[in-house]
Parts: sequence; structure tokens; C-alpha cells
Amino acid sequence: MITVSEAKNHIIKHGKQPRVEEKSLSDALGFVLAETLLAKIDTPPFDNSAMDGYAFSFSNWDKKSALTVIGEVQAGSENSLKTAANEAIRIFTGAPAPKDVDTVIMQEKVERKGDKITLLDENLKQGSNIRPKGSQTKKGAVALQKNQELTPAGISYLAGMGYSKVTVYSKPKVSVIITGKELIKAGETLETGKIYESNGIGLTAALRQVGIEPVSVTQVDDVLKLIENAIKSQLSSDIIILTGGVSVGNYDLVPAALEKCGVEKIFHKVKQKPGKPLYFGKTSNALIFALPGNPAAVMTCFYEYVVEAIDSFTQKRHLKSLTLPLENDFTKKTGLTYFLKGKTTENGVKILNSQLSYMLNSFAIADCLIRLDEDKTEYKKGDLVTVLMIA
Amino acid sequence: MITVSEAKNHIIKHGKQPRVEEKSLSDALGFVLAETLLAKIDTPPFDNSAMDGYAFSFSNWDKKSALTVIGEVQAGSENSLKTAANEAIRIFTGAPAPKDVDTVIMQEKVERKGDKITLLDENLKQGSNIRPKGSQTKKGAVALQKNQELTPAGISYLAGMGYSKVTVYSKPKVSVIITGKELIKAGETLETGKIYESNGIGLTAALRQVGIEPVSVTQVDDVLKLIENAIKSQLSSDIIILTGGVSVGNYDLVPAALEKCGVEKIFHKVKQKPGKPLYFGKTSNALIFALPGNPAAVMTCFYEYVVEAIDSFTQKRHLKSLTLPLENDFTKKTGLTYFLKGKTTENGVKILNSQLSYMLNSFAIADCLIRLDEDKTEYKKGDLVTVLMIA
Repeated sequence: MITVSEAKNHIIKHGKQPRVEEKSLSDALGFVLAETLLAKIDTPPFDNSAMDGYAFSFSNWDKKSALTVIGEVQAGSENSLKTAANEAIRIFTGAPAPKDVDTVIMQEKVERKGDKITLLDENLKQGSNIRPKGSQTKKGAVALQKNQELTPAGISYLAGMGYSKVTVYSKPKVSVIITGKELIKAGETLETGKIYESNGIGLTAALRQVGIEPVSVTQVDDVLKLIENAIKSQLSSDIIILTGGVSVGNYDLVPAALEKCGVEKIFHKVKQKPGKPLYFGKTSNALIFALPGNPAAVMTCFYEYVVEAIDSFTQKRHLKSLTLPLENDFTKKTGLTYFLKGKTTENGVKILNSQLSYMLNSFAIADCLIRLDEDKTEYKKGDLVTVLMIA
Repeated sequence: MITVSEAKNHIIKHGKQPRVEEKSLSDALGFVLAETLLAKIDTPPFDNSAMDGYAFSFSNWDKKSALTVIGEVQAGSENSLKTAANEAIRIFTGAPAPKDVDTVIMQEKVERKGDKITLLDENLKQGSNIRPKGSQTKKGAVALQKNQELTPAGISYLAGMGYSKVTVYSKPKVSVIITGKELIKAGETLETGKIYESNGIGLTAALRQVGIEPVSVTQVDDVLKLIENAIKSQLSSDIIILTGGVSVGNYDLVPAALEKCGVEKIFHKVKQKPGKPLYFGKTSNALIFALPGNPAAVMTCFYEYVVEAIDSFTQKRHLKSLTLPLENDFTKKTGLTYFLKGKTTENGVKILNSQLSYMLNSFAIADCLIRLDEDKTEYKKGDLVTVLMIA
């Protein structure tokens, strides 16, 4: 049995080379750039007014006379008027500054009578209220670096320089296979021995939480051949997640089925609670996670391990790790890392009740998983712990 | 002109009554429950084994003899075998405990020869390794409270007790209207005075970030009648977001168009930077936000104000506020609240360069907006500031 750190290192070590793809900019939210993007144009593409006001040449003004307004330019238009000494042009926000003007005075700071304006802004300087061409980004300069995640503002920024496509890291294709002959669907009669299937719907939601729609969610009975066929049909996926049948009981057929499918076992069993029977393997193409069947173990192993593999494809850290002080004492056994359902507060993080691996009532209201180290047995209020944010 | 706090209070005060809807549980990720849900069944629904091992009656064992294995029960099956004194039944994880047994010993802790097992677990007690019926949740008890957000674990939990539908708060219908005759699409020729449209694509991405697909994104020229028609056609939405044309220039036609559409103005202009010209109004049905056209002002007003209105529909706080120490000094004017593009670090939050309202290069890499108060002018490293997390 290996430790949690060893298990995580194996997953990182066996991570696949990320794929890239070209995406429409408007569909690229949350993806990570696989290329450094250079500015396609100067932005702004031309000198323009930052205000509604009057544009004029500062050096061509005698610093005392009123200015004569000789024309107007609005955003989206062009104006080829030339101003002589002490002349101005009415201008609006975003409108291109006519060639020989270099200064704009806000409309609130002039007194206008007919076509004459008196300037009332004592702080006005040459260049005031003009946004110079290229002052945001110069054509050819780095706009966004490779490995930058695309946020809404980043998308708006790239659109503003004429980008409509970007090359990003692809999301992995993920298949889910649920095993267990005890599982029935909502609405079916709950005979003794049967339980409602919840891991398929829970994993689908968890995958959506990290932006992935599973390519398939299959449910199979505890029959070696059926499990084997289900695995074989999904081997073109990047990641296969199985649940159930991974312990050492006579009906724990998943490791055997994986072996028959040519999956190379990397590890089986981790010194942790919940999720001790966790299995990780690979083929030349796919990474395979076989999780135990208990719902809380499934969700814990997903967040702690499967997301790590997903991140290696998307090159994006989906879940944040924090170091926070505990708000309650906790005693545990030595030899196992514990992942406890927690809730962050203003003062730190609280360990919730109902921590057993088959219990989800605390998990349903948790916003984090608290990691308690293998060798430590006594945790006191105020002790700093590592917390994985899951909501 | 009103303050930022006054503006936010107006938005909260004029928030609409949230709507509710019934959703399939599998599509309810991220929604907030509009009802308290009671457990439909005892979970687990029957006493079952937590381990692969052997089940027997603790009181019916003489505490010294080996037990005779008389049968087997696996998960998903039923077993009506009765054990006599010193008899046991082979059992697997999740399998229902036969009626007269109350204890399970792990398979690793017995020595089996033929049908005899010798028990080697000194810590074994009556009830060990049995998960009692109803030990997670008793039928009729509160499963999840109203106003709980549905996480993947919460969805799995509800599926496990047979839920397939839930009543949640509905997302608002949001329309986006972009105004400006200077706007062209990527791929078109960039003549002087023109700029690439970016607010529509940026707002679409920002809405998706909070789980909303806009019902429409329209672009209109700076013509009063066209803007008016565009607004009228979207008045059945819950929220309308406009950009551009909201200052006081002659071509700022949006407030006039809104008035012609019967929109009641709640406020226009806020003591803030960027986004001073922000307008907020309403009809009997819709909330209307008219944002200035500068890309950074658009994104800032979206995160600071529009998300507040969206939250009042979904009953979910989409963006987190934190109090963090500043990592650099900053001097500002008095009289305006500043929203600065920031990046959180291990030690606090850093103010990024390029803060002007038309600049998005810093916004593209920001993960938060830092709020600097209206009346304070000098900020020093270490000063605590309010930060709105946006990525």
C-alpha cells in the first residue's frame, strides 16, 4: 500500500502530453492558451478622445482666447477638418482625434456661446483626454502569454484587437463506468439489498463542475465479461473512471477485468480514508481510475486524484488548495491520511459531522476536503491544515 | 451623483421576487434549493456490511469456537439463511445483513480452513462493520435545507435516496444590447474611427461564467429609434444590459431611448472609476443596466452591479468578497470609489498596471477587483482592502 503523496506523484508522472486545438474565441472561456498571442493591431488603433468635449491643438492656442468650433466628429466617423489657430472641433468619446489636434477639454469645463467656447480647466495640459494610438498595446507586442487562462475580460481584450480564434489546451474525453448488481434507478421498487444508483449522476455533476461533459456513463452488472466489454468500448477515451468492485472480495472484478483489457496497473490501494481501495492504471492512450463504490469515497477520490489528471490535460488548476486553521479538535488513527468533509468560515475551517465513507449528508453541504496527515493522530483547534476547495 | 453603496442598495431594493422551477436532479448542479427536502427513505435502506468478511450473531457465538460458514450473500442479493450458534455467512461490502446477524468480521482477520473460520480480531465488538439502516438519514428527516446550493456530492446524496427532481430558484433571462456606430466585427477592415466590437463577446463570456446563456446579444447603431426598438423587443427579459451611449454627449441616446420605452430611472451616474456614467432602471418586469462603452468599465460594472441582480434571482452568491492586505501603495483622488484590477498572491493582493477604463490588458490577467474607498486618498502596503474575486 502506498501513501497519498506517492499516489499523487504517480498520477503526475503518468500524465499524458496535453493536446491543443483551435477554438472560436467566443467558446474559449475557461480554456488555457497554448500559444503566446501578439497584438494584431495598435490598441487603440488611432488617437481618440477619452471624453465628450472639444479637441484642439494646444500649441496652436494663444492660451487666452475663446476657441471657435468649426466642426464635429463622433465615434465611428472620420473628420478631415483642419483647425487653424484658436479653433476647435466638437468631439465625442471614442471619436478619432483629427490629425492636427492633440488635446481635448471636457464639455463640462467650457462655457459655450454660439460657436465660441471659453476654456475653464486650469489643469488642462497638452495631451489631456487623448488616448494615444497603441497606448494599451502596441502591434506585435505580447498581448497574452501562453498558459494564461482565458477570462471574460481576456476574451473581450482579444476580441478588441480582432482575434476570433485561439489555440488552447483540449479538455480530456472522460468515460464513466458504474459497476454493481445492487443498483437501481429512481422510481424503481427498492427491494431489500438494492440501493438507488447515485455515483453515475454524482460523477457527471462533478465532471461538469470542472467543465467536462462525460462522453458516456455506463452501468454494468458484477460480471467479469460485462465489465471487460464496458472497459474495452471506452479505451479511446483519455480518462476512464470506474466505481465499485475494486476491493479484494470475490465479486471485486474490476482489477481482473482491467488486466484482461491490457491495462497496466500503476498502483492499487492507498493509505487513506476514505477510498483505500483506489486503483490507478493506464494503457498507451488512457488513464484509468477505479474508485471504490461508496459515494463519499467516490467523490473524495474524484476531487483528490481524478481532477489532478484532468488538470494535466487542460493545464489549469481547477481546485484551489488553502492552508487554514482548524476550528475543532480531531483524533485519528496513525498510518492513514484522512480526507474530511469541511466547511470554511471566517475563522478557518470546521470539520463536519458524519465522516463515514458511505455517508454523503455532510459532503452535500461541505465546501472543502480537509487533509489530515498519515502520521499525526491528534489535531487541535488552531492547527494549520491543507484544505482542497471543492465548492 | 450617488455613491457606490447607495447604488448597490438601490439594486438590492429593486430586486425582483425570485422564480422557482422544477428541474431534473441531474441538471440541477449549481442551482439553489427553493424547498427543504426530506429523506424519502432510510439510508442505508437496510442493515448492510461495511466490509468483505463474515457475518454472524455476536451473542450466539461462544467467543472461543471457530465458526462454520453456511452460505453467502453478495451486494444486490437477499439471503434468508438463518445462522445457528457458532455459524457465519460469507458477506460482501454493501450486502444486506441476514436477519439474525449483527456483526461482521473482515476477511483479513480470519483464518479459513474449508468451511471453518477462526476469528483473529481482538477489537471486534457486537455491531462491528455493520452499517445500520437509517444511520445516514432517517426517512422523513431533513435531508437538505431550503437555500442549499446543489453540489455534485449533494446531487449524489439526493439520488441515493431516490430523488430525481428538485425545485430550485430559476436563473434570470438576460438580454445584451451593444450600441455604437464605431463597432465592426473581427475580419472586417479597420478603417480610421472604427474599433473591433468586444463588449458583446465579453459580456456573453461573463454571463456564462455565472451560469447564464444570454437570450440575445444585439448590436445597434447610435440612432434613437433603433435603440428604442432594440430595448422594446427585449422587455420580456428579466435583465437587460446595454453598453455605450450612456454619458452626456449628444450621441448618448440610451437614457432617452429607455425613457421612451417606459423604463423608470432609478439612478444615473455613480461616484466611481471606472463606470461613472452607469444607469440603472426598471419596468414592472425587467431590470435595466446601461453601462458605459469602455471595455474595462463594462466588465467592472458587470461584476460589481449586474451580478448582484443576477444573485437576487438565483439566490446564490456567485462572486466571493475577501478582505486582504495590499501589496503596493496607491494614491487616488477623493470623491470617487476606485475599482482596480488586482491579482491575489500568497501575501495579499497586488494592484496591476494599466488601470484606465479603456484598457483591458491588466483585466485579462486579473483575478479580482480591489475596491478603494471614496474618501480615502492614500493607500499604503499592508492596508486592508475589500476584494471581489472574479476568477
